[in-house]
Amino acid sequence: MTFDLAAPDVARNLLGIKALTFDVQGTATDFWGTIAREGQALNRRKGLDIDWGKFADDWRGLYRPGLDAVLKGERPWRSVDSLYRETLDQLLRERRIASFSEPELTDLNHVWRRLEPWPDTIPGLLRLRRHYTVATLSNADMAAVVRMAKHSNLPWDVILTAELAQTFKPDPKVYQIAARYLGFKPQEILMVACHKYDLHGAKAEGFRTAFVARPMEFGPNGKTDAKFEAEFDLNVNSFIELADRLGA
Amino acid sequence: MTFDLAAPDVARNLLGIKALTFDVQGTATDFWGTIAREGQALNRRKGLDIDWGKFADDWRGLYRPGLDAVLKGERPWRSVDSLYRETLDQLLRERRIASFSEPELTDLNHVWRRLEPWPDTIPGLLRLRRHYTVATLSNADMAAVVRMAKHSNLPWDVILTAELAQTFKPDPKVYQIAARYLGFKPQEILMVACHKYDLHGAKAEGFRTAFVARPMEFGPNGKTDAKFEAEFDLNVNSFIELADRLGA
Repeated sequence: MTFDLAAPDVARNLLGIKALTFDVQGTATDFWGTIAREGQALNRRKGLDIDWGKFADDWRGLYRPGLDAVLKGERPWRSVDSLYRETLDQLLRERRIASFSEPELTDLNHVWRRLEPWPDTIPGLLRLRRHYTVATLSNADMAAVVRMAKHSNLPWDVILTAELAQTFKPDPKVYQIAARYLGFKPQEILMVACHKYDLHGAKAEGFRTAFVARPMEFGPNGKTDAKFEAEFDLNVNSFIELADRLGA
Repeated sequence: MTFDLAAPDVARNLLGIKALTFDVQGTATDFWGTIAREGQALNRRKGLDIDWGKFADDWRGLYRPGLDAVLKGERPWRSVDSLYRETLDQLLRERRIASFSEPELTDLNHVWRRLEPWPDTIPGLLRLRRHYTVATLSNADMAAVVRMAKHSNLPWDVILTAELAQTFKPDPKVYQIAARYLGFKPQEILMVACHKYDLHGAKAEGFRTAFVARPMEFGPNGKTDAKFEAEFDLNVNSFIELADRLGA
């Protein structure tokens, strides 16, 4: 179902949604900026000159293939924390960087638990949660999303992740367990993401879909697909615009 | 581990906890009072004279045997919602009450999603969540605890229930998945409950334990075990006292 993007009042009536499920890494939080900022601090502290923007690109670049190997059945399910650690070690090895102790590596890997929200995330969620149940639906581990919520004061009502189904988005099972645990019909749930594959997966299970453009997801020079598409029920530029469009 | 109940400062240091997991039905919310109040309104609306306090006792009385049948392997796992509905139908049949339509029965059964907090619950949780991750760990269904959180404004950081392990407390699996999904060691988690079997189950998995006395759990004339025990790390009369004792 699509509708006139210029008619917010229509949108609200059309959707009839009761809960929103949010992608976290990229959609609600700025992983690239967080890694770049934490990395620069690390450079200063340890006298290094690592390009952390490039590092963030490469680190995240190894993430999706890691998940896809599980989805294709080439590897058993694993925690995303262990996947990030494996690829962190690989990237440091390739760059011949041996400046970090084991506790420093563990802490660096846990940057994924400290991702900072985009400026519109918290104001938008606080409005949305007055009218809807707001849940995460992340590929990250439960523990990572729990820690991130506390670290960055993200006001989720419910934390759900693909770990609860021992698989990853866009496996249909992830959207199915979300509907079940929220206790709503798929058509009563709006999946919110900046990644189109995620929205396609949700739509195939009957969810409504909202695309949020995050042109800075991979930093100021990064390549992102931030183009609005009529195939999604909503296309917005921020969580604040999402709240506006949903009458929250 | 036990300690001097009169030394709150010692308690805080001894525990070193990072997260609290709360039983919901009875510990955080007043199911007996909620059913009695909703039932009285129903009596007035439909001109009935059902003793809803007694009804609440009997309804809840059939709950634990229903869970135990699953734990003993006599029945497959089932949602608590379906268990309550089965026992509701049974009780109405026994009392020869046929005054309710199907939508009314569904709504009546969903009283378990509308349980009201004890007066100290929300003020205590708001203090505790500033210092700790506060999670549910309920035998109720995910969807029921999610709805209840929204309905009664319960400020949980995380909603976890036994449904995630397809079993019921005190099955060790429930406490194990809670520790895993929270990302803390069992000894960093404090189980808070008014039911001693629940605290025994948590303790056996390495959790710390806090007993909250809820003498009114089964109404003003109900029988409850509200006795403090030295075997628990903490014994308190309210969530506010719990916050005091944990320095929150």
